[in-house]
Amino acid sequence: MIPSDLQDAFDAYERALATDDVAALDDAFAPGEGTLRGDSDGLLVGHDAISAFRSTRGGIAPRVLDRVESRRLADDCWLIVATSRYEGGGTGLQTQVWQLADGRWRITAAHVTGRTPSFDRSVWRTVGDPLYQGAFEGPLAGLRVAVKDLFAVRGYRIGAGNPTWLRGAAREREHAPAVLDLLKAGASVRGLARTDELAYSIAGANPHYGTPANGAVPGALPGGSSSGPATAVATGQADVGLASDTAGSIRVPASYQGLWGLRTTHGLVPRQGMVPLAPSFDTVGWLTRDGTTMDAVVTWCLEDDAPPLPARRVVPVEVLQLVEPATREAFQAWAGGTLEEVEVGPLDEWFEAFHVVQAAEAWRAHGAWVTAHPDAVGPGVRERFALASGVTPADEASARSTVERLADVIRALVDDAVLVLPTTPGPAPVRTASAAELDQVRAATLRTTALAGIGGLPALSVPALRVGPAPVGVCLVGARGTDLSLVRHALGGLR
Amino acid sequence: MIPSDLQDAFDAYERALATDDVAALDDAFAPGEGTLRGDSDGLLVGHDAISAFRSTRGGIAPRVLDRVESRRLADDCWLIVATSRYEGGGTGLQTQVWQLADGRWRITAAHVTGRTPSFDRSVWRTVGDPLYQGAFEGPLAGLRVAVKDLFAVRGYRIGAGNPTWLRGAAREREHAPAVLDLLKAGASVRGLARTDELAYSIAGANPHYGTPANGAVPGALPGGSSSGPATAVATGQADVGLASDTAGSIRVPASYQGLWGLRTTHGLVPRQGMVPLAPSFDTVGWLTRDGTTMDAVVTWCLEDDAPPLPARRVVPVEVLQLVEPATREAFQAWAGGTLEEVEVGPLDEWFEAFHVVQAAEAWRAHGAWVTAHPDAVGPGVRERFALASGVTPADEASARSTVERLADVIRALVDDAVLVLPTTPGPAPVRTASAAELDQVRAATLRTTALAGIGGLPALSVPALRVGPAPVGVCLVGARGTDLSLVRHALGGLR
Repeated sequence: MIPSDLQDAFDAYERALATDDVAALDDAFAPGEGTLRGDSDGLLVGHDAISAFRSTRGGIAPRVLDRVESRRLADDCWLIVATSRYEGGGTGLQTQVWQLADGRWRITAAHVTGRTPSFDRSVWRTVGDPLYQGAFEGPLAGLRVAVKDLFAVRGYRIGAGNPTWLRGAAREREHAPAVLDLLKAGASVRGLARTDELAYSIAGANPHYGTPANGAVPGALPGGSSSGPATAVATGQADVGLASDTAGSIRVPASYQGLWGLRTTHGLVPRQGMVPLAPSFDTVGWLTRDGTTMDAVVTWCLEDDAPPLPARRVVPVEVLQLVEPATREAFQAWAGGTLEEVEVGPLDEWFEAFHVVQAAEAWRAHGAWVTAHPDAVGPGVRERFALASGVTPADEASARSTVERLADVIRALVDDAVLVLPTTPGPAPVRTASAAELDQVRAATLRTTALAGIGGLPALSVPALRVGPAPVGVCLVGARGTDLSLVRHALGGLR
Repeated sequence: MIPSDLQDAFDAYERALATDDVAALDDAFAPGEGTLRGDSDGLLVGHDAISAFRSTRGGIAPRVLDRVESRRLADDCWLIVATSRYEGGGTGLQTQVWQLADGRWRITAAHVTGRTPSFDRSVWRTVGDPLYQGAFEGPLAGLRVAVKDLFAVRGYRIGAGNPTWLRGAAREREHAPAVLDLLKAGASVRGLARTDELAYSIAGANPHYGTPANGAVPGALPGGSSSGPATAVATGQADVGLASDTAGSIRVPASYQGLWGLRTTHGLVPRQGMVPLAPSFDTVGWLTRDGTTMDAVVTWCLEDDAPPLPARRVVPVEVLQLVEPATREAFQAWAGGTLEEVEVGPLDEWFEAFHVVQAAEAWRAHGAWVTAHPDAVGPGVRERFALASGVTPADEASARSTVERLADVIRALVDDAVLVLPTTPGPAPVRTASAAELDQVRAATLRTTALAGIGGLPALSVPALRVGPAPVGVCLVGARGTDLSLVRHALGGLR
């Protein structure tokens, strides 16, 4: 029989779960670096990591224990395996190793399986097997596409990451060309995947539908705004993400989740049937797990006449200065001295000009809707639109002339060189990062990603770096129209 | 450090997983009744149960171990927790307790989490959040409906549990009335849920899309043909299943999965927009987890003028004779002597007449399609259609006159009594049951469920019995039109 003090500890833990008593839950887990807790999102190691996770989880759904199996493993060590029944249907399973130390029974390892949701609503809005069947043959046959919920899929509405938007949307009568192109090649639509609201964020959090898991780093943000397609691809729920990139919305989640992500040359892929954010910078692109799939997609969707890449490889020193030390170290070790450092000028100025034009265009695209639905969007995006509403025509004109000047600078640079840089200044921030930390990450990231945006240039993020257990992308930025060459170059090993 | 012989055992286990070497996997788990293995489908206890599961699983998807954490719990006991990365994306987690006995390291407990699929394609064809929004207010607001893939939902095709059927189907222009009715009351469609092929089975297995899990009994069949809606509701993925019942297709999965299931009075709920099987017996009905939800649905969908039920409660002795001993015992303990035993006549004759008319009508409905697509349906249903094709007009006429005579008998019986009987002769069979065992279960079940079918009577299955860990339903059969009275009576405690 289970020792009575262990039974008491187990019962107390169950009560703490039911009441979401975070302090008691933290206390029930053994302190130290060796404690384990795993679930479908991955394995957390160490009491601190487990505790941080718990602070973001919120409580669990009401449930009762169903069957409790206990096994004595040693005098000071028991295994308890319990199934539970949720009030709202479904069953759960928990496996716990309890060990006695200093007179207290504590959990040293736990594995938890919650009830199975019909699907992950933080990743998808609608999903099917398939949701839309493509041609039965073709070079992309068998590939399942997660379509960012900004693109028209015939018969479905566009949700744009916002429930109020969705309610006001009509069913689309035609596929967006970018969707149709994939279907014609045999790919099928697996589902409509979540986006940050109106694609106006790079964090990957959505206040209405939740934050998708990072498929590579448990407890980290997924990156956005193409959060849903990225997580769907990283977790094997889809093979291709069809997404948009205005200021990094494909490259950032690719970097954070260890994916290949291509932002195409501005204007190369038609944007009809896609909800705009800032048309001067909006591009269509794709996310995949591997280069072969990316190559297949890009080869099909773009003309196979991309100009070759120049041999010169350069990295902007101003970007390197923004990169976190461990990531810079990993990047430089990876580059192995093959990159020439160049100066591109003050990134603050680059970004500010980009930012103002983006804001002005975003307000032009969505200001009327945001004004009509003042409470519809979450705090971060609301703040961005509030600022956007204040951009004057003079501000915009001035910023636009700066953008045009900078576009010439960056285009001249990639005329005889490929830009090579860390896609993001570091790996994905943890979900528990403070707003101030996230603001800082956002500022550094956008200063990095704006370069390709300003130039209208293709940018390919490849999962080449590892910082601790986390992936970080290396980004190649080439001249306009070199999209496929960038992919082929990366597929050949990057150097 | 982990002992080298344990490392060897762990490595050998991983190799066995990769090659699906079932004998080696069985051998790696400790023999006896105490061994544990759990996953999202539930907990299996005992080496035999684990071994039986494994024989039905097939291999696992290719994956590599990512991170392996080991902890010494005692000299003869180690914990190993490992994460894995699937080749096709996604991560897995496994927790194992290894114990040394008789010089061999074996697993005494395991908890496994595979990668998260986008959704369970054995349960759903298409799913959304919601897939179709109902009215924003109404008595059913907030309820998520799993629509059996026999009903028209506007903008979607009907799949009828068969991929060839699906390919030939056009998008529906209008909701089936039974769907629309729920939407008008505020319920929303969560998704299109799987059915046995053309609803022509009660097992719940589908050769094309897999067999849904039984939400109540790990390793057991879900029951069919409304397998998808039933599992969706039992696992909390939906709140209401909209389904059809010709010969038990709602009642059987309700009984097997501990749900409330109502087959309505024949003709009471319009069947437009629903793929028929045998129109003389086809009915629409619902599955829910609790009586309150069932009451809300039935109150909305049917007229609130059901005649009261008579006080007399009877059970057909011929049905009791078909019931498995443990279930009969549970039923009689539950009834506590309140039921009067009556004779209804030879069930073989009842069923045979029902069966012939059903087959003739099924052939009339689908014979042309089955003939045109001879390889489209799986073995069980193919065999049923082959027999159906041989029913002559004379056979049918003779069976139909028998059915009409029997309908009078059963209708007379429920004029002054409610029939009360075990919904199924026993709990859900295990998934590893032989074809012969399943044939026997099917024969006994259909002899029980055909009574209501023949009479066109409403039949409500309520999860009142438990046989070991498994639920079995008690079924109330009343006079035509007493649907709501049956629900209200059951809600009041059944007796």
